[in-house]
Amino acid sequence: MRAPVQLAHASRLLNHGPTVLVSTIAGGRRNLMAAAWSMPVEFTPPRIAVVVDKNTYTREQVAKTGMLALNLPCRALADLTYTVGSVSGRDDPMPAEDKFDRYGIASFTGPALGLPLVEGCIGWLECRVIAEPHTEQAYDTFFVEVVSASSDTRVFANGRWMMDGRHPELHTLHHLGAGLFAVAAETVQGRVMAG
Amino acid sequence: MRAPVQLAHASRLLNHGPTVLVSTIAGGRRNLMAAAWSMPVEFTPPRIAVVVDKNTYTREQVAKTGMLALNLPCRALADLTYTVGSVSGRDDPMPAEDKFDRYGIASFTGPALGLPLVEGCIGWLECRVIAEPHTEQAYDTFFVEVVSASSDTRVFANGRWMMDGRHPELHTLHHLGAGLFAVAAETVQGRVMAG
Repeated sequence: MRAPVQLAHASRLLNHGPTVLVSTIAGGRRNLMAAAWSMPVEFTPPRIAVVVDKNTYTREQVAKTGMLALNLPCRALADLTYTVGSVSGRDDPMPAEDKFDRYGIASFTGPALGLPLVEGCIGWLECRVIAEPHTEQAYDTFFVEVVSASSDTRVFANGRWMMDGRHPELHTLHHLGAGLFAVAAETVQGRVMAG
Repeated sequence: MRAPVQLAHASRLLNHGPTVLVSTIAGGRRNLMAAAWSMPVEFTPPRIAVVVDKNTYTREQVAKTGMLALNLPCRALADLTYTVGSVSGRDDPMPAEDKFDRYGIASFTGPALGLPLVEGCIGWLECRVIAEPHTEQAYDTFFVEVVSASSDTRVFANGRWMMDGRHPELHTLHHLGAGLFAVAAETVQGRVMAG
């Protein structure tokens, strides 16, 4: 069900603007937040831009390690996505706990960088930060390069999305605001017009 | 039907990762291309990052004027969106023509910057480029600030999207690849989990 994605196809996982979960680990402590704002900037090498606010605990962790993972949640994870986007890992009442423990979120270890990846997502990208201090400071924008990618082959295989309705719970989420997500529930094939 | 959007709400138009049409005008000649890769980077002031490849005619026009508009197409414009993303304005067979003329695309003039905006879209943002030569060169990424925004009030009003199925043809497009678009056809409300 989970299979590697060729790096040349990794940016396609984010081509249509889904909301992602950013996962990190630093000093043995994991964290997880939702991020509506990300986009590919290059297919080869696979590079992504993602906004991580200065106020977040994730930002502290990324500053320490220069690594983050992007996990693609699906309709079945709408509550999880909204929850980890609403609560800071810094506010955890029990220092030994993290958001994974607190909300019973299962994870597995990324093959390239050892980052915690979220079970039940449909795509996973382990990434190294390309240091760009100016854009990180001025726009909270991190440029990262994907070093490992994988997908749930029921909806993404051979470099292509298959959102044909066979697995409606596995379609991507797109945050409209205040916990309301659009779901990429249907598709339409564009045709080149005569001109 | 078309109404101004407060600048504090402008970034919400792009929060869920829709594909956009980038429109420009320079030296009296208009152009229009599709861009799957854009994201907000700030709500206030409303700032957006958008990828414009070095090979595009749009890039030449933006370099001359420092301005571009982002138009949000909807399901009804899937063919138009794929078409203007597949054909370069530079290749136009008749120098007096542009893509608007060639494909019969109606436009109106933006209120702040005079940019050509596409009729039938559901959101429009006129933007000024914030000069960032390094990220433009290294990542084809332009940071822009929105100076005017408007929306089709049937689907976006008072700073909120209403994708409740009353106007399915007006839902946003999200490019999966090769002209296949996901449509933000349904919504789901996330709830904060007990933890």
